[in-house]
This record gives sequence, structure tokens and C-alpha cells, in this order.
Amino acid sequence: MSQQLVVGIDIGGTNTKFGIVDRRGNILCDGRMLTNQHEEVTGFLEELHGHLALLIEQVGGMENIKGIGVGAPNGNFYTGNIEYAPNLRWKGIVPLAKLLEEKFGLPTVLTNDANAAALGELIYGAARGMKDFIVITLGTGVGSGIVANGQLIYGHDGFAGELGHIIVIPGGRLHPGTGAHGSLEAYASATGVTKTAIEFLNNRPECKSLLRNYKPEEINSKVIYEAAIKGDALALEIYEFTGQVLGAALANFVMFSSPEAIILFGGLTNAGDLIMDPVRKHMEENLLPIFQNKVKLLFSELKESDAAILGASALAWEMKD
Amino acid sequence: MSQQLVVGIDIGGTNTKFGIVDRRGNILCDGRMLTNQHEEVTGFLEELHGHLALLIEQVGGMENIKGIGVGAPNGNFYTGNIEYAPNLRWKGIVPLAKLLEEKFGLPTVLTNDANAAALGELIYGAARGMKDFIVITLGTGVGSGIVANGQLIYGHDGFAGELGHIIVIPGGRLHPGTGAHGSLEAYASATGVTKTAIEFLNNRPECKSLLRNYKPEEINSKVIYEAAIKGDALALEIYEFTGQVLGAALANFVMFSSPEAIILFGGLTNAGDLIMDPVRKHMEENLLPIFQNKVKLLFSELKESDAAILGASALAWEMKD
Repeated sequence: MSQQLVVGIDIGGTNTKFGIVDRRGNILCDGRMLTNQHEEVTGFLEELHGHLALLIEQVGGMENIKGIGVGAPNGNFYTGNIEYAPNLRWKGIVPLAKLLEEKFGLPTVLTNDANAAALGELIYGAARGMKDFIVITLGTGVGSGIVANGQLIYGHDGFAGELGHIIVIPGGRLHPGTGAHGSLEAYASATGVTKTAIEFLNNRPECKSLLRNYKPEEINSKVIYEAAIKGDALALEIYEFTGQVLGAALANFVMFSSPEAIILFGGLTNAGDLIMDPVRKHMEENLLPIFQNKVKLLFSELKESDAAILGASALAWEMKD
Repeated sequence: MSQQLVVGIDIGGTNTKFGIVDRRGNILCDGRMLTNQHEEVTGFLEELHGHLALLIEQVGGMENIKGIGVGAPNGNFYTGNIEYAPNLRWKGIVPLAKLLEEKFGLPTVLTNDANAAALGELIYGAARGMKDFIVITLGTGVGSGIVANGQLIYGHDGFAGELGHIIVIPGGRLHPGTGAHGSLEAYASATGVTKTAIEFLNNRPECKSLLRNYKPEEINSKVIYEAAIKGDALALEIYEFTGQVLGAALANFVMFSSPEAIILFGGLTNAGDLIMDPVRKHMEENLLPIFQNKVKLLFSELKESDAAILGASALAWEMKD
């Protein structure tokens, strides 16, 4: 077994990150480039190939590389295509895995970024050795990757695990992107938490808060966090409310796949116990007794700056030889 | 391969049904006995062994039998135990699979009845050839069995797939058995539908209905159905409301595991299109575009009288040799 390394590529709307990773999750070398500088995917591939060829040479050449894993928005594991990604310039269906295989001559697997994050936890992170767990990514949006019986659940069409779009409050807050009312993402994403803050500030003019020092457009996760650690009551209530919605949603997810652990990842987790405590409380309150005090609620163990590359690279280890 | 037959045993609160089944789902012979006549599980096993020994002889003896599958309330696949089943007389943990193995000398697998129903559909029914589907059992309670990547999802503790207890309307109707508010079972079970009828009758005294010919305690699925097929507006509205709640719940389940099909089973499905039409409409309305018009919504193809034995027997075919 000479092929002890894999390539991980994470394609985001702005940046594409790539790196070469060993079995233990060490990133031996890495780099980044701008995704949307390239109107055509062929130009993107050209530039990416240039960067990666140098890195691959650094680690001893192609014969050391087992394959390539890619995390991409709207990435479909079954087809290897990026399908109608709203925040990429390449429209329609882009057969990215096939294009990369042709370019590099290496087997290539692709999935969406939340599924890649789940595999990252499975291979290198907090879910090592687990067969049943769920990763929830709490960033600009809310994504998820679900592992059951030791395998990612892709569903019949490759689109399983859209837990951010599950309706948690029927008739609730509008999600401007989807038109749905009351989806988890409308509350637990960075945008959702900011919206909660602005609603609370508007609806309670009598209530003092450090957040009143900011204009509405300056309110974001960071200023809410800073107010909360100073003990600002309104900021703490924003975490309590977010934890209530997210915790109740997690309880529903537990009744679906009864995971050993739920792993939270992304921006919101920087708030630590401020968010974890209410999430745990409300999750437990909403569980049937047979599920109570069983599910580990964990933060990701992967460094946020490395996680995207690691998650993508994990896909390549999962590939059948 | 001489072992072309399996034994299926379905243990219910009142009756235990058992039968011998071939690969195609033909029940070669079967029987039933009273479950709760036996205060002790040993007496139950004694009687069951007596019945089954005769049936096994009829089909040519033990050497034709591959194994035993059991569907039982609170049956845990991993341990083979029945754990704290509220409607059985045997309290605590009953190691039923082990006891049956000792009694019959045949490998024995056990799970809960809804999981058994899902395997029944996979091996003999509407889900043949599918890798990703969900079975929802709509009876006295609401149960579910979830298959992803061709395998039942048991979760880390064997209790996955309790979709009847997912909260669909936060703060909604009380479920007297669990104390939860707004769970799917509080609306879509036989009891739930009856409760909807009584609420509608009480809240709209001005509204005429054939259901007013019955005392509250006489209202049940059957009289609601009979009123509905006569065009009774209130009865039709009961199905519309039930379909709205169930359809929205199914949309959430689709965003979890993206199944090829959802298969409905049990008493409520006797209402046919009266229930299927509103369920389908509200499911589709609540789905993200990428999931719309993709999921097959089907009724079970198994005869209700045979389904319990078939589901249990399917477990035995799934056993590793």
C-alpha cells in the first residue's frame, strides 16, 4: 500500500481550498484560489491543476495519491455532478468529478459540503469509531450529513440530509431563499440568529441592551456573542431562543435515526456553552424517555480552517479500491 | 440450499400470529394464540412451541427451516429483547430471541412491528428492489420503519424510526400516552383521527354532519369513513386536516432520507384516495423543489391479515447465514 495520501478539494462560492492529506488527517500542504474568477469551469480546472500538480510533486508524485475527494455546493455523490448551484457562476449541471478524473487521471468522488463534513468527523474527528451520528453545520446556512449503519445517507437521488429545510415551526418565519415558512435554517443560520436579534430589539423597545449601540445592518453573530459574554440579557435570550428551536429540531432528528452523537460545526458553535446549554436542555425536554440522556451532543473536533479540506479528503479514503 | 422456508411470529398485545413462509411470501400454514393468557413468558413459549412444532412437521421438518423472525412491541434488534413493552404482561426485559433459539434450535431475530413491516415490503411487497424507502404504519399508533442504503436504520441503540413521536405542531395536541404536545401520532393514529372528529363536532355546533347521529364514544375510523363516502362535508374535512398534518410530516421525512417511496400501511389507508389525495397534496406543497414530484406515495401491497407474519418472516431472510 504505497498510496498513503489523498487530495481534498473544497469548492465554495468565493474560495476553493485544496490540500494533500494523510490517513491521520495531517494536511501536508495546501493552497487556495478564487472560484468565481473563472466564468467557465475549464479555466477553473486549468488553474486548479497547475496548483495541485506542484503540491503533488512536493509529496513525491502521483503514485502516492489514492484519489481526489471534492466537497461542493449541490454536489451529487451518485452522479459526480454539481447540479444548479445558486452561488457558483457555472450554471446547470457540471460533471466535475468526471472532468477532474480526466484532468488528473485519479479516481474522484464528490458530495456536498455538509456530507463531506460528516465524513471528516468520521475519519478524523469526533465521530471516529461511530456508526450512527449526525453532523449539523451552522454557518450562513444550516446543512447536515447523516451517517447510519456506518454509511452516509444519500437517499435515492443523492439529496438526503437537507435538515436545514425541515419545517420546525409550521407557518413560522419566512426563509427568503426557499419561500418556506418556519424552516430550521430560518432560525439557526447566522442570518437567522441576526434576524432574531433584530426582531427582539424591535419588539421590546423598553428593553435595554448593548446591541442598541449598533445599527441594524451592523448586527451579526460576532456582536451578539460579545454582548452575551458581557452578560447582556437580550443577547443571552437570543441564544436561549435559538437553542430552543434547534434543540427541539435535534430531538426530532433523534427519533428518526437514533444517533450515538450529534456533532455541531460552524460559526454558531464559537459561542460555546452559551448555545450548547440551551440546545441540550431543549433537546432533552423534547425526547421520549427511551432516548433521554443517551445522545452525545458534541462540537466538531476539526479546526474550522482545516475542516473543509479534511472533509473533502475523507471522501477519497471512503472510495472503494 | 434446502432451507427454503422461514417462520414468522408477530406478537401483539392480544394475539400472537405465526406462520411458515416461502421466499415468495406465500404463507404455507399459519395459526394464532392468545398472548396475554400467559402471565409468564415460559408458558407462552411452551404453547407456541406446541403449535409451531406441528406446522413445521407439516412442511417437512426442521431441516427445511432457515430461521425465525419475530415482530414484537418494543422489540430490540440488537439485543433480541422485548424491553418494557407497556401492553404485554411480561414486564421489564424479556430475552425473547434467545429463549426461542433455545426452544427451537433455530437462529432467531427480533425487531419491532413497524420495522418488520418495512422488511415485509422490501422482501415481498411494494418496496421490492428499492434501497431507500420509509414505511409508515397508521393504526392504533403511528409507527415507522426506515430503509436507507438497502438496510433498516436501527440507530445506535436499536430504537431508530419513532416517527410517530416526532413533534409536527409545537405546543399542539396532547398525546396522553407520552405527555408530548403536537406529535404526529396525536393526529394521524386512529385515536388521533377520532379526536379530530370530536373536536370538529364540538367546535362547530352550526355545522350539520352525519356524524351527529353518533354518540362521542361511538365515533371511530369506520363511521368517519362511511360518512365521508356519502359526501359528508365534515367527515371530508377530517381527512383533509389529517392529510395536512401527515403530508407536512412526510415532507420533513423526505428532507431527512430522500426515499424513493413512502409506503402507508394500516387502518387509515382503508380510506383510499380520501386520505391519499390530501396527504400527497400537502407533502408536495412542503417539499423543496429538488424533492418535488419524485417521491412515490404508495399503499402497502401486503394483505393486512398476512402482513404481520410476512413482516416478521422477512427478518429471517435478512439474517446472515
